[in-house]
Formats: sequence, C-alpha cells, structure tokens
Amino acid sequence: MLSNHLQNGIETARLVWSRLPNSDDEALDEVGLSKKSDGSRSESLDYEVIENNAYREEQAQRGKLMVGYYVGVKWFFALLIGIGTGLAAVFINISVENFAGWKFQLTFSIIQKSYVAGFLVYILFNLLLVFSSVYIVTQFAPAAAGSGIPEIKGYLNGVDTHGILLFRTLIGKIFGSIGSVGGGLALGKEGPLVHTGACIASLLGQGGSTKYHLSSRWLQVFKTDRDRRDLVTCGCAAGVAAAFRAPVGGVLFALEEVTSWWRSQLMWRVFFTSAVVAVVVRTAMGWCKSGKCGHFGSGGFIIWDISDGQEDYSFEELLPMAIIGVIGGLLGALFNQLTLYITYWRRNYLHKKGSRVKMIEVCLVSLITSVISFGLPLLRKCSPCPEVELNSSIECPRPPGMYGNYVNFYCGKDKEYNDLATIFFNTQDDAIRNLFSAKTIHEYSAQSLLTFLVMFYSLAVVTFGTAVPAGQFVPGIMIGSTYGRLVGMFVVNFYKKLNIEEGTYALLGAASFLGGSMRMTVSLCVIMVEITNNLKLLPLIMLVLLISKAVGDAFNEGLYEEQARLRGIPLLESRPKYQMRKMTAKEACGNKKVVYFPRVVKVADVVSILQSNEHNGFPVIDHTRNGESLVIGLMLRRWNFLSNLPFVMLWHL
Amino acid sequence: MLSNHLQNGIETARLVWSRLPNSDDEALDEVGLSKKSDGSRSESLDYEVIENNAYREEQAQRGKLMVGYYVGVKWFFALLIGIGTGLAAVFINISVENFAGWKFQLTFSIIQKSYVAGFLVYILFNLLLVFSSVYIVTQFAPAAAGSGIPEIKGYLNGVDTHGILLFRTLIGKIFGSIGSVGGGLALGKEGPLVHTGACIASLLGQGGSTKYHLSSRWLQVFKTDRDRRDLVTCGCAAGVAAAFRAPVGGVLFALEEVTSWWRSQLMWRVFFTSAVVAVVVRTAMGWCKSGKCGHFGSGGFIIWDISDGQEDYSFEELLPMAIIGVIGGLLGALFNQLTLYITYWRRNYLHKKGSRVKMIEVCLVSLITSVISFGLPLLRKCSPCPEVELNSSIECPRPPGMYGNYVNFYCGKDKEYNDLATIFFNTQDDAIRNLFSAKTIHEYSAQSLLTFLVMFYSLAVVTFGTAVPAGQFVPGIMIGSTYGRLVGMFVVNFYKKLNIEEGTYALLGAASFLGGSMRMTVSLCVIMVEITNNLKLLPLIMLVLLISKAVGDAFNEGLYEEQARLRGIPLLESRPKYQMRKMTAKEACGNKKVVYFPRVVKVADVVSILQSNEHNGFPVIDHTRNGESLVIGLMLRRWNFLSNLPFVMLWHL
Repeated sequence: MLSNHLQNGIETARLVWSRLPNSDDEALDEVGLSKKSDGSRSESLDYEVIENNAYREEQAQRGKLMVGYYVGVKWFFALLIGIGTGLAAVFINISVENFAGWKFQLTFSIIQKSYVAGFLVYILFNLLLVFSSVYIVTQFAPAAAGSGIPEIKGYLNGVDTHGILLFRTLIGKIFGSIGSVGGGLALGKEGPLVHTGACIASLLGQGGSTKYHLSSRWLQVFKTDRDRRDLVTCGCAAGVAAAFRAPVGGVLFALEEVTSWWRSQLMWRVFFTSAVVAVVVRTAMGWCKSGKCGHFGSGGFIIWDISDGQEDYSFEELLPMAIIGVIGGLLGALFNQLTLYITYWRRNYLHKKGSRVKMIEVCLVSLITSVISFGLPLLRKCSPCPEVELNSSIECPRPPGMYGNYVNFYCGKDKEYNDLATIFFNTQDDAIRNLFSAKTIHEYSAQSLLTFLVMFYSLAVVTFGTAVPAGQFVPGIMIGSTYGRLVGMFVVNFYKKLNIEEGTYALLGAASFLGGSMRMTVSLCVIMVEITNNLKLLPLIMLVLLISKAVGDAFNEGLYEEQARLRGIPLLESRPKYQMRKMTAKEACGNKKVVYFPRVVKVADVVSILQSNEHNGFPVIDHTRNGESLVIGLMLRRWNFLSNLPFVMLWHL
Repeated sequence: MLSNHLQNGIETARLVWSRLPNSDDEALDEVGLSKKSDGSRSESLDYEVIENNAYREEQAQRGKLMVGYYVGVKWFFALLIGIGTGLAAVFINISVENFAGWKFQLTFSIIQKSYVAGFLVYILFNLLLVFSSVYIVTQFAPAAAGSGIPEIKGYLNGVDTHGILLFRTLIGKIFGSIGSVGGGLALGKEGPLVHTGACIASLLGQGGSTKYHLSSRWLQVFKTDRDRRDLVTCGCAAGVAAAFRAPVGGVLFALEEVTSWWRSQLMWRVFFTSAVVAVVVRTAMGWCKSGKCGHFGSGGFIIWDISDGQEDYSFEELLPMAIIGVIGGLLGALFNQLTLYITYWRRNYLHKKGSRVKMIEVCLVSLITSVISFGLPLLRKCSPCPEVELNSSIECPRPPGMYGNYVNFYCGKDKEYNDLATIFFNTQDDAIRNLFSAKTIHEYSAQSLLTFLVMFYSLAVVTFGTAVPAGQFVPGIMIGSTYGRLVGMFVVNFYKKLNIEEGTYALLGAASFLGGSMRMTVSLCVIMVEITNNLKLLPLIMLVLLISKAVGDAFNEGLYEEQARLRGIPLLESRPKYQMRKMTAKEACGNKKVVYFPRVVKVADVVSILQSNEHNGFPVIDHTRNGESLVIGLMLRRWNFLSNLPFVMLWHL
C-alpha cells in the first residue's frame, strides 16, 4: 500500500487540487484522522488553484486543442446554466400561477354560495400545497429549506456548507418552492431560484450527479474549486435574471452581493448566461401568451411595469421620499433583528425536536396565513368603484387571483370592491402590481394599508426560517410598497398636484425596505428599474437606497450576513474591524499552543500530532542560519492523510 | 545629516507609504541616484498599503474620533467629486451647445443670402474654436490631449503616467474639450469628462493643488496610494454619470472597465458619487429648461429618449440584428487597428516635430471636417417632407443646430428637407437623436447614410490622436447608428411589418460599434439603456454586444488596451497568456544578471550598485542553515535613497 502510494506520488499530489466537493470525508473517517465535528460543519474551499508540480505538469501537457476544449466547455456550460435556470423558472412560474389561479377561481366560485365552504376549501388548498412543500424538504432535501442565498454567498466566498449543492437539493428547491409560494405563505420564489441556478451550475461543474449515475467523463473537466466557483457565480446570476426577468440585475447581484472578488473575464461569461436566461424566459412567455400555459403568461416581460406612471417630480417630494428611506432602514433593520432571534430560537430549540415538529409548525403558519388573508378582508367594508371614463381599460370589480385592480370580495352591490382583498386575498405578484399601479389614486384606505402592513410584516417574520424554500424579496417588496403607498397617499393629499402617483411612492417604499434589510446598492437599484421599466425614477431609487442602507447599517448587518453568521458560515469582510487593526496573531491565539511540523518529520509523529488535536492546518517551520524561525508553508489535515507519507515528500513534489 | 536621519528613522519610514505623487523625483535627481529615463516614464503605485512599523504605529495612535473624521472626509470628498464633476459637465455642455447653436444660427441666417459667405463663416467659427482648444493643450496642458481613459485605466491599475492628474490638465481638459467639440470635430466630450472627474478626485485626494497654493492641511488625510486610487475611481464613475446622465452606467464603467479589483465597500461610495452627479445635473437641467442657459436644456434628462419606439420584436429580426453585431465587431476592430497605426505614426514622426506641427495638423483636420460637413449636403438633392398628420409634433423643415429632424439646407421649395444635412450639418447630439428617432421611417436615403458612414468613419480615424481632448463614445455611436439604420431600412423594406422602427436598429448599431471597439459588456449595456430609456430592448442589446465583442476579440484588443500599450502603460491581464503558463521567471529574465542585496550591506556598496544599473527594485537575499537562498523582501530604489542608510535599518524599522 505504501509503496504503491509512493509510485503514485504525482497522482496523490493531483488530488490536492482536484478533489470533488465532499468526496474524501469517508476516507478520512476510516482511519480516524479526520476532524471530529458535529455534522453541520463547513469546509473551506481553495480560493486559488494550488500550483504544485503535478498541476504544472498537467498544464504543460495540455495542448492548444485541450485548452480550446476547456474554454469551449466553459461557455457551453454557461449556455446550459442559462437554459436550465430559465426553464426551471418558467416551470416554477407556470406551476405557481396555475395553482394559485385555480385556488382563487375555485374559492371565488364557491363563495358565491357559501362563504364558510369557500373558506374551508381555501384553507385546505393552501394547506395541501404547503404540506407537500414541507414534506419534500424535511424528508428528502433538508438543505432546500430557506432562501439558500446565505449558503451560496458562503460558498462563493470560500466556505462549503454540507449538502447545499446536491441534486436532491435542486429537486427539493424547485418542487418545495412551488408548494410554499403556491400555498400563499408570506415568502417569495426569488431566493430559491438563485439557489436553483447555483445547484444547476454546480452539478454541471461536477459533470453531473455521480450518485444518480448522471455523469459523463467528458464533462468532468473542471477539477479546481475556482472553476466550479465561477460556474456557481453564473448560476446565481441566472437565478436572479430568471426570477425578476432582470438580466443586468442578475449579473450585478452575482458580482456585488455574492462574490468577494471581481474578475472582468468572469463578468463576460456571467453576462452571457444572463442574456441566455432572458431569451429563454422571453421565448417561453411569448409561447404562453396565447393562453397555452393557463394563468401564466399575461403581463409581459416586465413584471411590474409602471412606465406609464409618474414622469417628473418636484423638489418638495424629496422630503417624503427621504422619510420613506428612513422608514425602510428602520423596518428593515427590525426585520433582520426579529428574524435573527426567531431563527436562533428555532435552530436551538424547536427544530431540534425532529422533522415532525417542523411539519406541524409550517402547517400552523399556513393555517394562520389563510385565516388572516381570508378573514380580514371580510371585516372590511367595501368601497364604491371609481367613476371610470369610457375608453379607460380599468375594470371594476374583478374576481381575485387575476391580473388587475379592484377585487370584488364580500361586496353586496355590483359596483363595489374590497380594497383589503385587492392586496391580501390575491397572489403576491398581483398584489404588488396593484400597489405599484398608477392612475388609481384613492384606491386604498389608509386603514386597510396599515392593517395589511402590520399583519403581513408579522407573517413574514414568523414564516422566515420555517422548513420550506423561502425568498425574502417579494415579501420585502410587499411590505415596502405598502408603507410607501401610505406615504404616497399623504403626499397626494398634502400637495394636491396632478402628476403625483401613489404607485411611485410604493415603488420607492419597496426599494427602501429591500435596501434596509438586504443592504444591496447597485444591483438592487438595477433590479428595481428592470422590474418596473421606469428609468426616470432611477435617481430617486438611488437616493432612497442610500438613506435606507445607511439607517439600517447603524443597527445591524444585512439579512444575509446575519443569517450566514447564525449558520456558522464565516464571511470574510473586505476590511478588518477597528479593534483588529492593532491586534497581532499572537493575541488572537490567546494562550493556545501552535501545533507545527518541522521540515522533516516521521510518520509516527504525524499520526500522533493529527490525533492529538482538531486543527485543520499545520504550519511547516524551518530555521535560518542565524536561528530565526521561518514559516515555509502550511499543510492541511486532508493533504497529510492523502499522501500517507511524511510530508516532506508531498512538499517537494 | 546622517545622524539627523537616524533620529528621524520613523519619519523616513513613514515616507515609504505616504509619498505624494511625483513629489520625490527632484530629490532623487539631486544626487544622481534616480533612474535615467526619457521623461515620459511611468511609475508604479503601491497596490496595498505598506504596513511597516511606522504605519502600524500611526494606526495605533489614531483614536476613534480620528477614524471617524477619516471616514467622514472620504464621504465628503465623494460628495465634492460628484458636485464638481456634475458642474464641470454642465459647464461644458452649456458652452458646447451654445457655441454650436450660435454657429449654426449664424451660418443659417447668412446662407439665406450667400452660401459662400456662410461657408466661410462656418469654417472660421470652427477653426477658431478648434485652434483655441489645441493652443490650450499644446502650450499649457499637454497631458490633456486625447481621451485620457487609457491613462486613467493605467493609474487605477497601478501605473502613474506623468502629469495626467494635475490641476493644469483639468483646466486644459475642460476648456480644450469645449473648443474641440464645439468646433465640430469628429470626437466626443465623454472621454474627457471621465478624465475631468478623475482629475477633480485626485486633486481633492492631495488636499488641493500644492503648486497653486490651493491646499489645506486638514484635507490632506489621504496618504496612501490606495485611498487616492479609490477617489479616482469615484471620479471616473462621476465622469461617465455626468457625460451620459447615466448614474448606474457610471458605477459599472468604473468597476468593469477601469479598475482591476472590485471592493464592495468602494462600490457603495462610487454609487453615492454617481447619485450626486445625477442630482446636480438634473437640477441644472431643470433650472435651464426655461431658456436661461441658451441652447442648453431642451431634451430632458435622457439624452436620446426612444421610449416611444419599438415595443416588441419577432424572431425573424434576430438575423439582421446578429448581422449588425458582426458588422460592429469588424468595423470596431478595424477602427482600433487604423487608429493604432495612425497614433504610432503620429507619436514617432509627426508629433516629435514640436507643438507648431500639432497645431497645424489639428487646424487642417478642422478645415477638412468643415468642408466635408458643409459641402457634401450641398451636393445632395432635397427630399419632400413626409405627409404629417394634424396632431403630430413633427415639424418639417427645421433650421440646423436645433432639436428635431428634417433639416432645411440648400432646399428650394418650402416643404423640403436635406437628409444628409440632418445628420452631417448638425451637432452630433442632434444627429444621433435624429438617427435614433422612431416614427420617421424613410427619412434617410441609403445613399446619404452610406456617404455619411464612409466620410465620418474616415474623419473619426484621422481626428483620433490629434492634440485636442477627444472622446470616442459619441463618434462611435454616430458610426454605429448610421450602419444600424441602414440595416434597419432594409429590414423595414423586407419584412414590411408595421411595428419595426429604423431607430431601434440604429441603437443596436451604436451598441455594436462600441462593443466592437471598446469591448465593454455590462457597463456599455447599462449605459445604452440609460441614454435611450427603453428597457425592452435590453436582451437585444446584450445579444448584439456579445456578438460584436466576440468578433472584435478575434482580431485585436480593445481600443483602450491598444492605446495604453502604445503609450507604454503596462496593464496586467487577469490571467496569464497561454505561452506564459509554462514559463519560469528564469526564462523571462533571459541571460540578464539578478542584482540583489544581502541582508547586511555597506552604504558604499549600495551607492555603487544603484549607480551601476537602472533597476527599480532589488531583492534582499538571506540563506537558511542548509545553505538555500531565501528571498526575504524587495527594496525599491526610492526607499534606498530616502533612508540614506544601510537598508538593514529600514528593513527592521
């Protein structure tokens, strides 16, 4: 065995830089040299390629043709990631919109006869969808719970969390989010789509899923962590591009939010992937437009088009807009803090009791959500429809779950609508469209918006962290646009000018809440513009984002950073903290002893050192002629084992 | 002297990391230890802060208050850069549009009586403006010639070219580009505005201009290259944001095109600067709208608004769009190659003959440009105005130099216009607006567009590299939109559908030429969307850019890279070239001897080594106990001199 390894020295050295994710854990465990851990450990990835002799030799052997093949596969994979993520997004969208559409249609037809029966059907429908989601997640793909963005962010910053990029996670994420979003919970499908894109990318990077025998040797050309990380970056961008139909926003999200380093070469490929996603989604939507996909396909490529909204703004409006920014910062920071507490409690108490408790919890949340979203509009008095000009396209009232404002719910007369039902008893996409809508001044009463804000905010906080795939973008836009519209109502009443639209303020509110919670800047700005198609509001969005992020930063970190820290994913900041500036490594170590290896060491010593501690890396020390110690390198636990040799051999390879 | 320096050891060490740009050259020259150079040398900047003991000590001494002040000044400077660049852009715009407006008004009023007199006035007006520009540049600010982007790109990648960020360069750039753009040359004001922003930022970073006694000790807080580089990045973004009124495009341009590394902290500040620019420019434009600024202020915040253009596109249109991409790649690569040859010839032959030759050259170019832009439309037959519906806003014919299509020039009848004059005898901004314009199908004849394309392309190539401030964005858009519109005309005739607009193809053509020449991706995409306000065309712009960049990359490098190389500015690529992969440092050195220092060395040896060669850096070598050589650091020529001591002292500080 040992001599065999000696002959295969180069092979062994190759393993150092070409290991597949999570592939060598079992081998380490066999001989008891692996680090003891609690199962949910994360492992660091190599940021750069380890350029040892084996790597250099392989590089030197590769001809121009092989390099060309390698580059070609990279671009081909970028194409596949785009197509795959685009199709996944279309599939999720078709499923969610059809489930939700059927649900509202069925409920609406039943409540014409009996509100009690309609209520029960509505609850059951929601419960069924949500249960299917939580069942898939808890039984089949536990890593698919939550948004997945903190884990992906961790991965792209060099920390691999166990199981986040597996094939089962991908499946769980897709079907789980159909259930959870279709079931009307206060969460979105955008975060999960980012995770979906990343999973597709990672599986491609491994040349398919080895576990399910879906792999090909020809596609297994990416052996380094760096190449796989590049693919996952493409996947992230594709996810955002598909979720919001915002290709440029996707590129920026991947580069601003998730990766620590910017490489212009990578940008070019990420850009390509995003463009592919845009083409795929657009083609699918064009195909669906004629009604082939049921409820999906109406509304066009821009999700919440407000290009016919406010054209201009005056200086007096900047004050209420700044106020929206401050509110966004405060509510966003509060959201981060509350979800942090709840997630902490869930992780340490509730979710330790097993998956049955998780399922019951989600079903309870679904029940509460259904009761509130059905019950509250019932308590609300209906309002008379606005007087409509003859050639206007506004229709009032309309049934719920359809594209359009002024939803009819529990209203007696013909020409009445229920303003709370318009946003609450509706799909989230339609609710946001209604909140953003222009030329619908005085559609909502302040009381309804305030009720909705409080209830939905609470629901979003409670839903966050349950065992279903859950994104925070759409709930954030819901919350933000509600208080934004509320402020807009006051502005309209106060300034009494003709060209002020409440919908503009709703959009700014949405931007402010996302800015206050997620603390993104340029990417969020571009996403907001791309989903609403009104470039003239760009300076206002920038202003609001600047304020809300600054206010939020005064209280805590961004949502993803907080959640990543809670999950034990270390994220390296771009600059050291103030108190770290004067710190030395000695102070950081405290009174712990440094375990190191000399340049030449016996195998027995290696084994005993490895067994005596849990460190993962060991500095190798040599001395200069005048006796000073010099660190000449670092050996990882993994490498030591792989060679089964004194390291000097591996070190000199 | 020596003992004095010994006492001030810390002071000396501080100089290592806090030198101001170009501040220590004279001192080095005094004792003859500085490197011999040919005057146009570039010097490398420190990428990271040099953390020696002096630096750490100063960091440790700084209280929380000082750190707060430091951060506050950074943001205050970001604000000032935004305001300064915004105001500079407004000033340049007002001047250019008024000069050009007067010019066309005067010429147009004179040609009602005599075309010869009008022609002479036109030529003289242009010549005067261009001469003022070239006079300022050659006599006062030689570094202000050209676009400045290659030099700024070099600076942000760690190479300081002499004189590019001085106060006189700033002044020369502003007034020079007013003359050159107002004088009707085939160049733009966008590149110079980027340089202007960078100059403002750099001057702020130095705490004002020391030469002109405009500095303050309180503002001289930025002592490291890194901080100054961050400010210059802000300045670049501000320049693009001001030039195109595209704040997000500005951020992306700074981060994609000019800086090698992405830091999310920096992004946030750059974003703020861009937002400030947008607010300043918008406010100025609102103030100017009522006519207070003469010809400036019409047209709104979006420069070339085509949001009322084509709404949708069919699959058949993708083929002609792809063809536009290929044409853009070919013409763009050709442009880069031709300008490279011409610039090479200019640098090595023509411009060596002194500034008088430079002035004559520019005046000749101006003369040719005037003759062509006045003469060619004269040869062109006028076309009858289109039949206009009653409530349409289209006016035909119009005088030149005004906002609007259908320019009247040398036309006999009342209801006729000259299509070549509409684009040629007009300001470039108006010409582009006319080329992009929707609902003006069949405005141009193919013959006119082709004539214009050939003539303007030649003029742009010849003008590039003359001794005036010159941007390549607007000429690129002109060229691209001309052949784009040409392709669009064929598409309109071929498909005979109602919703196809020639203006859409003009926009795609512009994107393709810029992509083929400058090889930008995401930033260009966002800039194109921001200047035209039509998000629906985003996937098409992405597609065209992908093709044109790929085609262009097959031939040569991007315009800025080629020019930077020609000027001797080394740009480090993000990845090594294929042939470099197997190369060792030994091979790169060839048979040249390595000049190194031992750890302890006599002053006399240092001086003799420094005088014996022109190297700028010297490795310091020590040996391990078993005799191996170890590099323990690198000393720069500059540092050696600063200390006047054996380096071991400096090394141990």
